[in-house]
Amino acid sequence: MENLTMLTDLYQLTMMQGHLVNGYQHKEAVFDVFFRTLPFQGGYALAAGLEQVVEYIENLTFSEENLVYLRSLNLFNEDFIEELRNFRFTGDIDAVPEGTSVFPFEPLIRVKGRIFETQLLETAILNLVNFETLIATKASRVMAAADGASVMEFGLRRAQGPDAGILGARAAFIGGCQSTSNVLAGERYGIPVSGTQAHSWIQCFPSELEAFRAFARTFPDSCLLLVDTYSALESGVPNAIKVGLELEAEGHHFQGIRLDSGDLTYLSREARRMLDEAGLKNAIIVGSNDLDEETIFAVRAQGAKIDAWGVGTHLITSKDSPSLGGVYKLAAEGEQGVFHPRLKVSENISKITNPGIKKIVRFYDQAGKSMADLIALEDEVFVEGKPLTIFDPIQTWKRKTLTNFRTRELLIPVFRGGKRVCELPKLKDIQTYARKELDTFWDEVKRLTNPHRYIVDLSTNLFELKQQLLLTIHKDIKASKL
Amino acid sequence: MENLTMLTDLYQLTMMQGHLVNGYQHKEAVFDVFFRTLPFQGGYALAAGLEQVVEYIENLTFSEENLVYLRSLNLFNEDFIEELRNFRFTGDIDAVPEGTSVFPFEPLIRVKGRIFETQLLETAILNLVNFETLIATKASRVMAAADGASVMEFGLRRAQGPDAGILGARAAFIGGCQSTSNVLAGERYGIPVSGTQAHSWIQCFPSELEAFRAFARTFPDSCLLLVDTYSALESGVPNAIKVGLELEAEGHHFQGIRLDSGDLTYLSREARRMLDEAGLKNAIIVGSNDLDEETIFAVRAQGAKIDAWGVGTHLITSKDSPSLGGVYKLAAEGEQGVFHPRLKVSENISKITNPGIKKIVRFYDQAGKSMADLIALEDEVFVEGKPLTIFDPIQTWKRKTLTNFRTRELLIPVFRGGKRVCELPKLKDIQTYARKELDTFWDEVKRLTNPHRYIVDLSTNLFELKQQLLLTIHKDIKASKL
Repeated sequence: MENLTMLTDLYQLTMMQGHLVNGYQHKEAVFDVFFRTLPFQGGYALAAGLEQVVEYIENLTFSEENLVYLRSLNLFNEDFIEELRNFRFTGDIDAVPEGTSVFPFEPLIRVKGRIFETQLLETAILNLVNFETLIATKASRVMAAADGASVMEFGLRRAQGPDAGILGARAAFIGGCQSTSNVLAGERYGIPVSGTQAHSWIQCFPSELEAFRAFARTFPDSCLLLVDTYSALESGVPNAIKVGLELEAEGHHFQGIRLDSGDLTYLSREARRMLDEAGLKNAIIVGSNDLDEETIFAVRAQGAKIDAWGVGTHLITSKDSPSLGGVYKLAAEGEQGVFHPRLKVSENISKITNPGIKKIVRFYDQAGKSMADLIALEDEVFVEGKPLTIFDPIQTWKRKTLTNFRTRELLIPVFRGGKRVCELPKLKDIQTYARKELDTFWDEVKRLTNPHRYIVDLSTNLFELKQQLLLTIHKDIKASKL
Repeated sequence: MENLTMLTDLYQLTMMQGHLVNGYQHKEAVFDVFFRTLPFQGGYALAAGLEQVVEYIENLTFSEENLVYLRSLNLFNEDFIEELRNFRFTGDIDAVPEGTSVFPFEPLIRVKGRIFETQLLETAILNLVNFETLIATKASRVMAAADGASVMEFGLRRAQGPDAGILGARAAFIGGCQSTSNVLAGERYGIPVSGTQAHSWIQCFPSELEAFRAFARTFPDSCLLLVDTYSALESGVPNAIKVGLELEAEGHHFQGIRLDSGDLTYLSREARRMLDEAGLKNAIIVGSNDLDEETIFAVRAQGAKIDAWGVGTHLITSKDSPSLGGVYKLAAEGEQGVFHPRLKVSENISKITNPGIKKIVRFYDQAGKSMADLIALEDEVFVEGKPLTIFDPIQTWKRKTLTNFRTRELLIPVFRGGKRVCELPKLKDIQTYARKELDTFWDEVKRLTNPHRYIVDLSTNLFELKQQLLLTIHKDIKASKL
């Protein structure tokens, strides 16, 4: 990825200069990255994008060209430009590992450092985390709908720009896709690449049969033929069978066919019957054409005979929910390591932030299933097995006592004093971790439609801190002390 | 932009090798880029992304690292790898200028060259053109809703990755936005950058008033204050008025306030009254918070007093229509400059392509208003003013005779023999051109909801060619000659 230091909103830079002018350059701040609502009205999200955030932070440095441009805006003074010239990230970052199942209000990334530097990071971190988390989650839903069948991601041509195609392919792989059509994503991230053929291939030859034979000659052991250029059942499948039998007779394995239009249920059942009758029982049928989790679920329920799915536009753009509303909110400010919790009020109760330096604790039962998460203050301790009563922070009468539990803290140290202190896992391992993580949740939470809400409560200490700060601010508003 | 040579679908490369193996490497092909449906159920789209396509083509070259990676896939033979090592684009490209109003089935870009090279280009061209055209169109709709008020694009944090933020800011500017918050887009494309302040700025200070005063000290002549951190009307606006009056007393111009939550109609009317009563009639009110063209239209209709709009997520992700379904379809194939028209059939009538090497002719009346477009064969001539009867290609009885017209061909030469033959206009000039172009269309076509459908017909010659090819293919399917 190219250097993204300038990938920020102008107001981050003006506020940075403001902090400098007002002598706040040593003031420290803690910011949380979190989202308020699960996408797709689903039951969970998969965190992704941390590797790109790390790369961004490690490359953070303003070039002389950047400074020349900023000076040309006539907004910034020379002291500030000088500070930028020497700018490096010197703070601490904690984050949940990529592939972790996450829920609303949980801090996915926690940034602690000088306000001068933490302010700058907001925009790029959100950009990277919002998009990859969204696509990883979408892909995970598509995988659930495909129920064990393989899914190829091939949305590059409709992705929202090159990065969306590349990072989207990465996130889709984290979410469980087996491969991408995107060669650059394959090269950069080691994602398996796959593909079949386009209608234009067929059209370039005098006949469909000749087109198929030419492709079989070129790729005798990975020959997957696109059968719907003229008529799938009248011409495509019969021609594919001819070529498939020729390949098998020559000792090759005929891979199968792809259907890219029409009624996938009907066509795939007929094609399966024709292939089987011809003795090509091992040839697979790939289905594509504007698919998403709902269509795959429906087509499967109707008895389609499809062995692998190609999913493009709807996955790579997350069409039914094209943005994740992740935010970056101040949780505490202070100096020399002493922090004061802060919150932002709002008429909208879900927009009131959680104050203080926080962590996420996940509680597992003895069978290893996730029972609940608690957003707690960093220094709180939960003794494993000691009964703990948790309560919903809005409907506080909804209580549940956990006993006999194991705990796990989700945030891990990523940067300390500006230096990276963790290894970045391999992408394949992130995919495996994501699947195993998801396995710890009950099916009710993972259901595609109307899922059960997983419990995410605030610890008693955090809840009380929040109430107390809200009371103080409301008093100050009434007394016009702001 | 980084080198995007590898930004392609794997099947483009396998098909290229197939063409090489089958001796088709000198076969030539013409591909059209077009979309079938207007986004947003709107009446027009604004073409964008050509400059990025040009940059992509000019940088097309496989590095040794790329070749090492491709070899590692165990799909490609050494002849093919050698061809890639020497790969350069050597063909012709024609395109409509960026900012041109365009309609379904019109070839926005026409690529002519060896099938070996034209095949490779499909994915990256579609990726770039689909996204920028989508966002330019969306921005143009937002501008229409704002009806002359200024619009700032500030969606970077929710954009689908870094490129989506950067190229989206560029496209939004083409569509009419005045500025972007995205500093990198500003640096790279010379787009004016703008910004105000974040809630975290207010929260960092002991009180809102102190936060406002600190900002005013830093930016006395561009002080725009965010007033909804605690309570817009009880605290934000009164504090902003205090600071505004102090600035004005010191001889500065107080810029105004931003409302980022709550009922923008009510809050802006009250804030306007309070500012006016305080004598701050020149202070502007900026409105933001999950806006799009529909919300802006509604809020304005309710009498909101908003002078400028900040539009983020919904614009940069084109939330209600997050992909443009642009395709790249074979229109002709041949050798040594002799081409045969080709089409792709489909059960779905709108998926049948238009064959042959084509151009777009726009017909203007004497007042300069656009009357209709004709997709025609490249060698057709339409004598200005000589009465011409055009007809709808589906409802062929819908006829209209044009008289007294001027014509303009929309496709212009961009590459000839692999060399660029046109200048790329400045971004500011593209914005101006887009606005003037749009001015040639009747308001009925540009209406945000239920627009009148602009006439785009096929020329008689093209229509007849298409009918004849369809008949032949259907006969071949029946005779199983494919």
